[in-house]
Amino acid sequence: MATLCRPAIAVPEHVITREQTLEFARTLHAGHPQLPLALRLIGNTGVQTRHLVQPIEDTLRHPGFTARNALYETEAKSRLPEVIHRALAHAELTPRDIDMIVYVSCTGFMMPSMTAWLINTMGFRSATRQLPIAQLGCAAGGTAINRAHDFCIAYPHANVLIVSCEFCSLCYQPEDLGVGNLLSNGLFGDAVASAVVRGEGGTGVRLVQNGSHLVPGTEEWISYAVRDTGFHFMLDKRVPGTMSMLAPAMRDMAEPFGWDISDLDFYIVHAGGPRILDDLSKYLMLPSETFRYSRATLTERGNIASAVIFDALDRLFEEGGAAEGARGLIAGFGPGITAEISLGRWTRPDTAPVSACHASAPRSAA
Amino acid sequence: MATLCRPAIAVPEHVITREQTLEFARTLHAGHPQLPLALRLIGNTGVQTRHLVQPIEDTLRHPGFTARNALYETEAKSRLPEVIHRALAHAELTPRDIDMIVYVSCTGFMMPSMTAWLINTMGFRSATRQLPIAQLGCAAGGTAINRAHDFCIAYPHANVLIVSCEFCSLCYQPEDLGVGNLLSNGLFGDAVASAVVRGEGGTGVRLVQNGSHLVPGTEEWISYAVRDTGFHFMLDKRVPGTMSMLAPAMRDMAEPFGWDISDLDFYIVHAGGPRILDDLSKYLMLPSETFRYSRATLTERGNIASAVIFDALDRLFEEGGAAEGARGLIAGFGPGITAEISLGRWTRPDTAPVSACHASAPRSAA
Repeated sequence: MATLCRPAIAVPEHVITREQTLEFARTLHAGHPQLPLALRLIGNTGVQTRHLVQPIEDTLRHPGFTARNALYETEAKSRLPEVIHRALAHAELTPRDIDMIVYVSCTGFMMPSMTAWLINTMGFRSATRQLPIAQLGCAAGGTAINRAHDFCIAYPHANVLIVSCEFCSLCYQPEDLGVGNLLSNGLFGDAVASAVVRGEGGTGVRLVQNGSHLVPGTEEWISYAVRDTGFHFMLDKRVPGTMSMLAPAMRDMAEPFGWDISDLDFYIVHAGGPRILDDLSKYLMLPSETFRYSRATLTERGNIASAVIFDALDRLFEEGGAAEGARGLIAGFGPGITAEISLGRWTRPDTAPVSACHASAPRSAA
Repeated sequence: MATLCRPAIAVPEHVITREQTLEFARTLHAGHPQLPLALRLIGNTGVQTRHLVQPIEDTLRHPGFTARNALYETEAKSRLPEVIHRALAHAELTPRDIDMIVYVSCTGFMMPSMTAWLINTMGFRSATRQLPIAQLGCAAGGTAINRAHDFCIAYPHANVLIVSCEFCSLCYQPEDLGVGNLLSNGLFGDAVASAVVRGEGGTGVRLVQNGSHLVPGTEEWISYAVRDTGFHFMLDKRVPGTMSMLAPAMRDMAEPFGWDISDLDFYIVHAGGPRILDDLSKYLMLPSETFRYSRATLTERGNIASAVIFDALDRLFEEGGAAEGARGLIAGFGPGITAEISLGRWTRPDTAPVSACHASAPRSAA
């Protein structure tokens, strides 16, 4: 019975506020015919603060893809170990207990994958499986949970470490001037996150079912143009309406399992933007308050891509978690358009029978 | 009991011979102080022919990463459906029977992943899981088999489609002039491959165990420098000696399972270069002939990255396969340095008890 334990999140030290974002947009795009629309869209995101790996002045410069990707690597190596140590501590495990590392990140590219560096420098075993995923964007947090879940079904004693590294500011492209680009420039933030899926024991979301859904004919809606200048994020204006297609898919996935998607106890969903959350409320007939964790992430950190659902889940833990056996949904949304959906029940070692034999699970020294 | 069925391979129509490769090296690098060494290394690869997605004249031009990656996408979309149809036919399945697509490719980058396009255009279900892996290089063919195996352990009725797309010629970098680069320019080839892992039934390699091994401290040995001009392949001169470290890891993986790694019936391994195969013979105490499938792939197609092991496995099928129950090894090697290893037994539906109930499995119309 795989359990997704408490995530660890970290955001960089450089902060940009909503007011600064709007001011930069006004200054940089003074003559842009659609500036008023862009300003309104940015204002509507509800994003109050975002965190960046560099000061905003450096973020706005494009030093070339070579330098950008080198910075991605440096920043990732300096910021990841701390959240990984914390995630392992939350799961009461050490690096030696980990059987697979799922690394999700769409804002930089490395080969060997970051997983090799983590294994070599943090004490993971040489036999640790490496699963780096770069091309599922914001949905990849959900993918990571789902593939970790599958792995623990295959190997019930296994433990999987998930690492999400999203430095969206390193994909800022000053020459991209579509309204979608201007909106994105005011929406995305940087963060790193980590979480462990324990095959046995652990406190958190006991994963019971997972699934994926690709909305036909929407490949162009969220995409990267891959160019000499790096990854260019392209956002179609139809994306905010995606929930009209994904809410039924979520319902269909839960129904054969006997769960009513509109009657769960907690919801941890990707906060791509405010409309996603508003529409989920509408289509699932749920009060806005239901999505408070995702909304808080969006407000305080912006859209931090695959890290959103870990940040939102951490807020549920911070609130004390849910009742034993409470039913919940975790869903990542991203390019494809793809939804990666998990259903699970809240579990605590004190009450869950499976955990009794794991009281002596090794504790992390971190 | 997951079975890796017969792969399908295709190579592009543009061919470059060993003699042409050596002549180009002499012409392009006439004044290079290490040209004699480079020519000797290229000659030693044993590669006789390679296939390229473009005529050699176009291959030698670098039109920029933007154009290169666009060409990757165009060529992939034009070449993949045919091998996928063939792989499905080999497995006696249709797209509707597939539960996950593992897409491995380190020579281009797309978001959404190619998996989204395949699902949308080839009749796969919207619920098909997408697992694109870009950062494990030549080892990724092994990773694909291993993760497909895990998925079928978790869901015994599932079927996984593996797709490998390697256009190594699109990573040719005319400005890279190290001996490792010159050698690589004469070693790598282009190919696409596909294979199905059937959770039940099927003829081929019944997967029984898999594992991964990362050689500590070798991250720099095989790597990409990610630059404005795209992916730059970096090859350290220590790489050919890798088998002294990986052969023991393979032995260690097989031993707890009761298998002697030097006493198996078939070996399908990554043909990174001739030394890899020679050293495997030496360290595993096996005659050179043992690696004839991998050697034939290398000779006729060059190092086709993650597609090598599928091409080599196809040659075993072409030879009539192995005896029922014959024990074998499949291993991909790549950056990290990482080895992805599978152990399996040859199985045929006529004799394997698990397949009896699948005689009516749907046949592909392709």
